[in-house]
Amino acid sequence: MSKNLTTRSEDYSKWYNELVVKADLAENSGVRGCMVIKPYGYAIWEKMQAELDRMFKETGHQNAYFPLFVPKSMFEAEEKNAEGFAKECAVVTHYRLKNDEDRPGKLMVDPNAKLEEELIVRPTSEAIIWSTYKGWVQSYRDLPLLINQWANVVRWEMRTRLFLRTAEFLWQEGHTAHATKDEAIEESEKMMNVYADFAENFMAIPVVKGFKTETERFAGADETYCIEALMQDGKALQAGTSHFLGQNFAKAFDVKFANAEGKQEHVWGTSWGVSTRLMGALIMTHSDDQGLVLPPNLAPIQVVIVPIHKTDEQLAQITAAVNELTAKLRKLKISVKYDDRTTQKPGFKFAEWELKGVPVRIAVGPKDLENGTFEVARRDNLSKEVVAAEKIVDHVNDLLEQIQKDLFDKALTYRNTHITEVNNFEEFKEVLEGKGGFISAHWDGTAATEEKIKDLTKATIRCIPLDAVEEAGTCVFTGEPSSKRVLFAKAY
Amino acid sequence: MSKNLTTRSEDYSKWYNELVVKADLAENSGVRGCMVIKPYGYAIWEKMQAELDRMFKETGHQNAYFPLFVPKSMFEAEEKNAEGFAKECAVVTHYRLKNDEDRPGKLMVDPNAKLEEELIVRPTSEAIIWSTYKGWVQSYRDLPLLINQWANVVRWEMRTRLFLRTAEFLWQEGHTAHATKDEAIEESEKMMNVYADFAENFMAIPVVKGFKTETERFAGADETYCIEALMQDGKALQAGTSHFLGQNFAKAFDVKFANAEGKQEHVWGTSWGVSTRLMGALIMTHSDDQGLVLPPNLAPIQVVIVPIHKTDEQLAQITAAVNELTAKLRKLKISVKYDDRTTQKPGFKFAEWELKGVPVRIAVGPKDLENGTFEVARRDNLSKEVVAAEKIVDHVNDLLEQIQKDLFDKALTYRNTHITEVNNFEEFKEVLEGKGGFISAHWDGTAATEEKIKDLTKATIRCIPLDAVEEAGTCVFTGEPSSKRVLFAKAY
Repeated sequence: MSKNLTTRSEDYSKWYNELVVKADLAENSGVRGCMVIKPYGYAIWEKMQAELDRMFKETGHQNAYFPLFVPKSMFEAEEKNAEGFAKECAVVTHYRLKNDEDRPGKLMVDPNAKLEEELIVRPTSEAIIWSTYKGWVQSYRDLPLLINQWANVVRWEMRTRLFLRTAEFLWQEGHTAHATKDEAIEESEKMMNVYADFAENFMAIPVVKGFKTETERFAGADETYCIEALMQDGKALQAGTSHFLGQNFAKAFDVKFANAEGKQEHVWGTSWGVSTRLMGALIMTHSDDQGLVLPPNLAPIQVVIVPIHKTDEQLAQITAAVNELTAKLRKLKISVKYDDRTTQKPGFKFAEWELKGVPVRIAVGPKDLENGTFEVARRDNLSKEVVAAEKIVDHVNDLLEQIQKDLFDKALTYRNTHITEVNNFEEFKEVLEGKGGFISAHWDGTAATEEKIKDLTKATIRCIPLDAVEEAGTCVFTGEPSSKRVLFAKAY
Repeated sequence: MSKNLTTRSEDYSKWYNELVVKADLAENSGVRGCMVIKPYGYAIWEKMQAELDRMFKETGHQNAYFPLFVPKSMFEAEEKNAEGFAKECAVVTHYRLKNDEDRPGKLMVDPNAKLEEELIVRPTSEAIIWSTYKGWVQSYRDLPLLINQWANVVRWEMRTRLFLRTAEFLWQEGHTAHATKDEAIEESEKMMNVYADFAENFMAIPVVKGFKTETERFAGADETYCIEALMQDGKALQAGTSHFLGQNFAKAFDVKFANAEGKQEHVWGTSWGVSTRLMGALIMTHSDDQGLVLPPNLAPIQVVIVPIHKTDEQLAQITAAVNELTAKLRKLKISVKYDDRTTQKPGFKFAEWELKGVPVRIAVGPKDLENGTFEVARRDNLSKEVVAAEKIVDHVNDLLEQIQKDLFDKALTYRNTHITEVNNFEEFKEVLEGKGGFISAHWDGTAATEEKIKDLTKATIRCIPLDAVEEAGTCVFTGEPSSKRVLFAKAY
């Protein structure tokens, strides 16, 4: 298989778009801005889902399902939230089609089937969920509610890119309700930490944990926690957010509870989500000019075995050895594919599995059988070695763990060497346009300055890091006093 | 907890509606016809999903995801299918809201944001999927495509009931493409068999496998296979369908492949689905006047343990014994809940877990500790027995298996005694209005007769059983000749 993949240095954006399609992850559909997630891409998403779901349940959450549609009057109840999403809402106005008399065999929207009230296709589910919670909460004994939903949502984006920004995307959204402010804040922080743990230890993507500025905050939240990752082109990507909602939705939907003293109080809320956008983060963190690079934890196929043979007899002998190996690897829950297609040559297969990011490739030829060895190749660093048959199972098992670790370390080194402290605006622009990455700089804390910097440079404040050190300084743009550095970057 | 559940004999329909809500399975939402699936109900659905997903993958299928929206021109391409669903389509016409100047803080649909082409919210995904398959299939080597999607779909039903008929519901839809007619038919039959296996061996619901008549066939299919279950009120419920689509969608979307001889041919298709409707089937097959009855395979909590104590010291002793038991049961992958709430009395807890259908309840009091015993109660037949501590783990493990089997046997006996052969229309009406259930009768094979019988009695042909015996007879309604019996029933 010839890859013909644009290289990252030629055109990073084109490289990404081509890779997503050529590695069979996703493609654009016949519906504007909506993608088709192909089986190979979906299998990776399923692995993310399974692990996140496990982590949510381990932290006491349960899944549920709420309606896709939100009546307009319900949607607009929490005004800030509604305003924040109003410009990107798909709206259902009719509930029936009828035959188009002017075009036989074709249909038209039936004007007599207009809804009394328009339905918004959920861009996020706070409104529908808090309107439901009103019926679920009476007393402090009903709290906390710790609920998650796996769902599709729609945000009518004008410029879309596969996985990164699509009109419809898949995600999970947690929505919790608590008796106290402290408990809700603790929950928001806990879920940010769950996301960070997942990103780093499962996806091998290092992230910075922080707060969003008021400008970048979720519409309707009092505080937005986030995890920010850095892509190989020096642009940041918001990989997950967790919102402390205060009592905003409880007040908008009149969700109150009787506390232990019998007094009525409004409930405190959180919401948190990650989406198929993580697929974009995954691709842009690890992949290279040969194609996708997958951390073993996320690889639908962890090991591919390719036979190298000339005769049918050789293939039969190789297959016998491979079947034995495969059985042993599968016992260790390693997913293995034996690519014994006779329609393709080994070189084609090598290129195809490289493109698809299979972490470990094993090649076996007659010489290997003779010598009692296998040739093992790593996808991440493209290195090869010959391994004795009696050591192959342990070797592969250890190697998968090593690759997972190495990918994280490599990404961490890249990220850490791309956080640059700057102390004046000239430097700021120079680093932004040159080296890229996160710029650690003092900021005067005003939305006005944030906006001016964005207008001038396209850089936004990605977050105020949780671990930011108190340090007297002056704003990189206005020179006003500042007490800590924040992270700026251009972002996806 | 007082259940106050209407009994089945009082009002079956009311019993069902109350049970769904009181057992915390689902509730109506603030969106017309759409339901909220509550955590306990969703946990049951997740168990169904996990098992079905395993079965689909075992039979070679992969998951993928296709857009929620279908542009109208794409939707109407397969005319029969489009016509079949046209009357129940939710239609997106706009993509933006704006501030309503007449109502400060409120929003209105922005008339300037009208879509050039309306988008149908998928009622089923054949159109969007076959339009995608066109790009995926060139040669016979690309076939078969064996793909499944877990998704939400919307059908604008006028009269809705929780789980049984809702405007939005969750389902899986398999869509496969094949090089030959025989292979596609084989696939349709295979998936009908997978559904039957799942219904009977996992959900403990006996089903009849059969064909639909042309009238009842899926719009756009050449043949619809189905599994039909019988509810306790004598009404049938279609629990799953598998369609042989012929080349209808391939022709509508121009999906062709080059066969081994290089000749272009249209692809053959199938589609198959089951939905959250299965939750309704589950409830109405097994449950009783005390509430939900769950087969152990589907129970989120398989065993609940309730302490019976007066003093804190007693509770501490009981808890120690329970912790030991719980650990042993969990090792066998049995899901256990220890209900040690101090806010509720044992009687309340018993009633609550009965209502929620937990298959096995264990009660432990000071006397039990003294005697080295546990009191074990079965939810399905409400029987109780005292079991020695040293035998309890094996006992519970065996009991869960026994309950699963007994529930199926009970439902099978009911179903089998409710298939009644009738040979004239008087008898037909008498059985239908009296005993209910399936009526096995000769039919002349015409849609006209089918419709007349439906108009007169509300009974429809549920299926032509796969195992129907060739037998000369005369139509129960017209007296015309017939070669086999079909199954009639009133249906959900």
